[in-house]
Amino acid sequence: MRPDDKPYWRSKLYDIIFEANTFEGKLFDIILLIAIAGSIMIVMLESVHGIRVRTGNLLRIIEWVFTVLFTIEYILRIIAVKKSSAYVFSFYGIVDFIAIVPTYLAFAFAGAQSLMIFRALRLLRIFRVFKMGRYISEAKMLALALQASFRKILVFLFTVLVLVLILGSLMYLIEGEERDFSSIPVSIYWAIVTLTTVGYGDIVPATPLGQFLANITMILGYAIIAVPTGIVTVEMARTRTIKVSRKVCQGCSSTGHDINAKYCKFCGEEL
Amino acid sequence: MRPDDKPYWRSKLYDIIFEANTFEGKLFDIILLIAIAGSIMIVMLESVHGIRVRTGNLLRIIEWVFTVLFTIEYILRIIAVKKSSAYVFSFYGIVDFIAIVPTYLAFAFAGAQSLMIFRALRLLRIFRVFKMGRYISEAKMLALALQASFRKILVFLFTVLVLVLILGSLMYLIEGEERDFSSIPVSIYWAIVTLTTVGYGDIVPATPLGQFLANITMILGYAIIAVPTGIVTVEMARTRTIKVSRKVCQGCSSTGHDINAKYCKFCGEEL
Amino acid sequence: MRPDDKPYWRSKLYDIIFEANTFEGKLFDIILLIAIAGSIMIVMLESVHGIRVRTGNLLRIIEWVFTVLFTIEYILRIIAVKKSSAYVFSFYGIVDFIAIVPTYLAFAFAGAQSLMIFRALRLLRIFRVFKMGRYISEAKMLALALQASFRKILVFLFTVLVLVLILGSLMYLIEGEERDFSSIPVSIYWAIVTLTTVGYGDIVPATPLGQFLANITMILGYAIIAVPTGIVTVEMARTRTIKVSRKVCQGCSSTGHDINAKYCKFCGEEL
Amino acid sequence: MRPDDKPYWRSKLYDIIFEANTFEGKLFDIILLIAIAGSIMIVMLESVHGIRVRTGNLLRIIEWVFTVLFTIEYILRIIAVKKSSAYVFSFYGIVDFIAIVPTYLAFAFAGAQSLMIFRALRLLRIFRVFKMGRYISEAKMLALALQASFRKILVFLFTVLVLVLILGSLMYLIEGEERDFSSIPVSIYWAIVTLTTVGYGDIVPATPLGQFLANITMILGYAIIAVPTGIVTVEMARTRTIKVSRKVCQGCSSTGHDINAKYCKFCGEEL
Repeated sequence: MRPDDKPYWRSKLYDIIFEANTFEGKLFDIILLIAIAGSIMIVMLESVHGIRVRTGNLLRIIEWVFTVLFTIEYILRIIAVKKSSAYVFSFYGIVDFIAIVPTYLAFAFAGAQSLMIFRALRLLRIFRVFKMGRYISEAKMLALALQASFRKILVFLFTVLVLVLILGSLMYLIEGEERDFSSIPVSIYWAIVTLTTVGYGDIVPATPLGQFLANITMILGYAIIAVPTGIVTVEMARTRTIKVSRKVCQGCSSTGHDINAKYCKFCGEEL
Repeated sequence: MRPDDKPYWRSKLYDIIFEANTFEGKLFDIILLIAIAGSIMIVMLESVHGIRVRTGNLLRIIEWVFTVLFTIEYILRIIAVKKSSAYVFSFYGIVDFIAIVPTYLAFAFAGAQSLMIFRALRLLRIFRVFKMGRYISEAKMLALALQASFRKILVFLFTVLVLVLILGSLMYLIEGEERDFSSIPVSIYWAIVTLTTVGYGDIVPATPLGQFLANITMILGYAIIAVPTGIVTVEMARTRTIKVSRKVCQGCSSTGHDINAKYCKFCGEEL
Repeated sequence: MRPDDKPYWRSKLYDIIFEANTFEGKLFDIILLIAIAGSIMIVMLESVHGIRVRTGNLLRIIEWVFTVLFTIEYILRIIAVKKSSAYVFSFYGIVDFIAIVPTYLAFAFAGAQSLMIFRALRLLRIFRVFKMGRYISEAKMLALALQASFRKILVFLFTVLVLVLILGSLMYLIEGEERDFSSIPVSIYWAIVTLTTVGYGDIVPATPLGQFLANITMILGYAIIAVPTGIVTVEMARTRTIKVSRKVCQGCSSTGHDINAKYCKFCGEEL
Repeated sequence: MRPDDKPYWRSKLYDIIFEANTFEGKLFDIILLIAIAGSIMIVMLESVHGIRVRTGNLLRIIEWVFTVLFTIEYILRIIAVKKSSAYVFSFYGIVDFIAIVPTYLAFAFAGAQSLMIFRALRLLRIFRVFKMGRYISEAKMLALALQASFRKILVFLFTVLVLVLILGSLMYLIEGEERDFSSIPVSIYWAIVTLTTVGYGDIVPATPLGQFLANITMILGYAIIAVPTGIVTVEMARTRTIKVSRKVCQGCSSTGHDINAKYCKFCGEEL
């Protein structure tokens, strides 16, 4: 299936890094996932003041080791893939790039290493490893249903936006600046906190009229949560589970191709 | 399609202001939306104490510029449309009027300019501009489903109202006035906060019996949220997406007409 | 339709008090609803300390007027109905009784008049007045769907009960008594507050392990809210809207009879 | 139905302890449930400081009585069942064991008796007693629907996990350590509290940018709660209610067998 103009080592490298069908490919992916999880753990631990003070230097060294490993992996991916640019500008290509940049950026900007947490996005690769095909089918079905309901959700969210603008401003007028509702932006924040039924309680109405408007806002929020739920449920009932191939395109490393697909629908490469 | 008894400039003006089919019409709508968003931003910024103190005068001047522009636009709309009264008393006609009145009212009543936030309602015009027909279809479908479930939702909300009256009063009896539950209206406010799962935490039960009743209230709220969701979902599954025409009636500027409609269903004007 | 052995005035009285078909019947029901709403308002106002101090005596007199009126109405209902005992022990019969008792009880027990709030249940009569048949259909459909899902909801709630028992106890073990989690009942109260996504914030985990368990509890609550929603939605989709007759049984004043029913299904009286 | 190689008393014992068809069997189960509820109550009461101080010794004695009774019951179960190991390692076997161990463990480890709360799991036996077959059908249907949606829910939860990792870290960067967001793990805890709409309010954003990100997080949480609900609802609509037999396997005491089953599907014992 691999074209002849590709040397054997590159095709082999490709199988290990991108595919999860062979033993080596699966092993590579599992080690990679553990490394990603580990590096995320390190970033999290470093943010805890007590731990940073005691073991800061050690953590920073481990961080560098992970970053160097991920950099090597990134370079190998560019080499192994046939159309490098297709990979570099694909979703996973960008995520892989973002995962290594912050550590280097930290030389220039203090605190930039916290951006390393975007490595978490790499964890989404997990669906490739464990019974990949099945989970990608499920993920794809979810994505399709959400896509189909996208415009309805957008109409809904826009209406909610107008609603919180008005509710927030009314509350600002009712409660006044001397209380919790110090400005319209803060009041809009309160309206969102209330309408979504989050209810922190950092900003609460103190006047009877304010509490009355809060009551209406809460009942509204309780009732309109039914709308996105209804939209998504109906779309899901319409979407059927789609079986997708476990093949990964050698051209651009994209997944989720149809079972009967012979060529990659993104770059035209033979699968 | 435009009747002969209408002068050319008026029909042209109509196309620009009300329709979004021509280039000028689309441009006008986009500039208008930016102006609306801008004027809302100004009102929001002015409510922030620090910003008002430093740049208050500037903001007030910009506000006036926006209001004058919106006033001119409102007058043009009345001129362009064939049946002025139909536009003036339509939903958008009233919203457009409310958008300009508060600034003038502020001469008489201090604080009235905060009502300008109702301009936010004008943002709903956005669905007209970007692939209008499609979004209006979606919005119409949502509206139809909500309309169909309106009576069931009303029965539900009324039952909830009776429930919070009783739960709130019981809590007032149990916890007593020396605690957070200082009166029945406040206790009803608590019952709504709890039943809708908002849970601010500004009023919480302190006695074991009060916590027990709170437990029951929460479980009830958790279970009955299923009811509006079920109602809306079932109605949505029944409602089919309806394709609507992108045409805007020249008589009363109403939208959402059926694809095959030849005359406006609100004012009888030929479309 | 009314049997001959009933004197005319009694049958007339019945029409006015129980039915909402004639003008007098509708008028009576509307006045009654206003009186109920008014008496609830009085009870609520009296619970507010400031208002009670200033206008306490006046409020108490109005309260007595309402109670006397409701007592007269209750006696008239017993007289008008054919089988008094059937009415007295029906849902509305009990509610009507509970609505008048607390004021008299207040002679013996201070604070008993607060129970007057149970009058709120009388408000449910509202569905009888405005386009009654339709709303009773909707209410009946909701009730049928909830009844059909009753056992599933019970299984769900029982599982949730076992879950909060265990989560609460674990939290008590993890956080310990010196913190917010002072006992297992209080910890169970926290577990319910968290699992139902109410989240007052009066009791929050302070240790990392406690926050970790709270995370799991919240994610669980977020996921399992889908279960009652799913149950109710599926049952609602199965239940069809049932048209019910607007007739009220003269024997026991029950409503919700089928369109084709000739005899009351509760007491056998001819409709 | 019972095989001949089993002595009469053992088969009789089995009927009483495991089955709920005979009068003695039902009586045994009801007494058992009351005892379990009682022992849970004792553990809860003992955790309340005021009660423990006053009646501590009495409670501890009652606790021991319950534990001894449950130990005897556990031993009887092992004797009565045909394949002891099958029972011991079944779900209920493990639960029954966990229910008695903590009291004995308390000799060695202080506080271990709080683990007794796991007895709550035994309450799940309740479905066996009251119209068992029906409730087990409902429970089984729920379980089947949840099982069918398991993979979709997993994909959803994993995506949520990646989301809270990123939202939490961003919030940590925006708000900084001097405020509530003292470390990334704490910020992730906040992200979960917000996304699930629990909203304790123990950690809240203080900067405008932080409140803006909180707004986005809340709207996201409000929208994506529709996803698990949609998944479960669709699966439930697909799953039909399955009638299950009320028979309990004599070999391994498992329930939930099909009506037409002749042999236990777990251990092959004749039913």
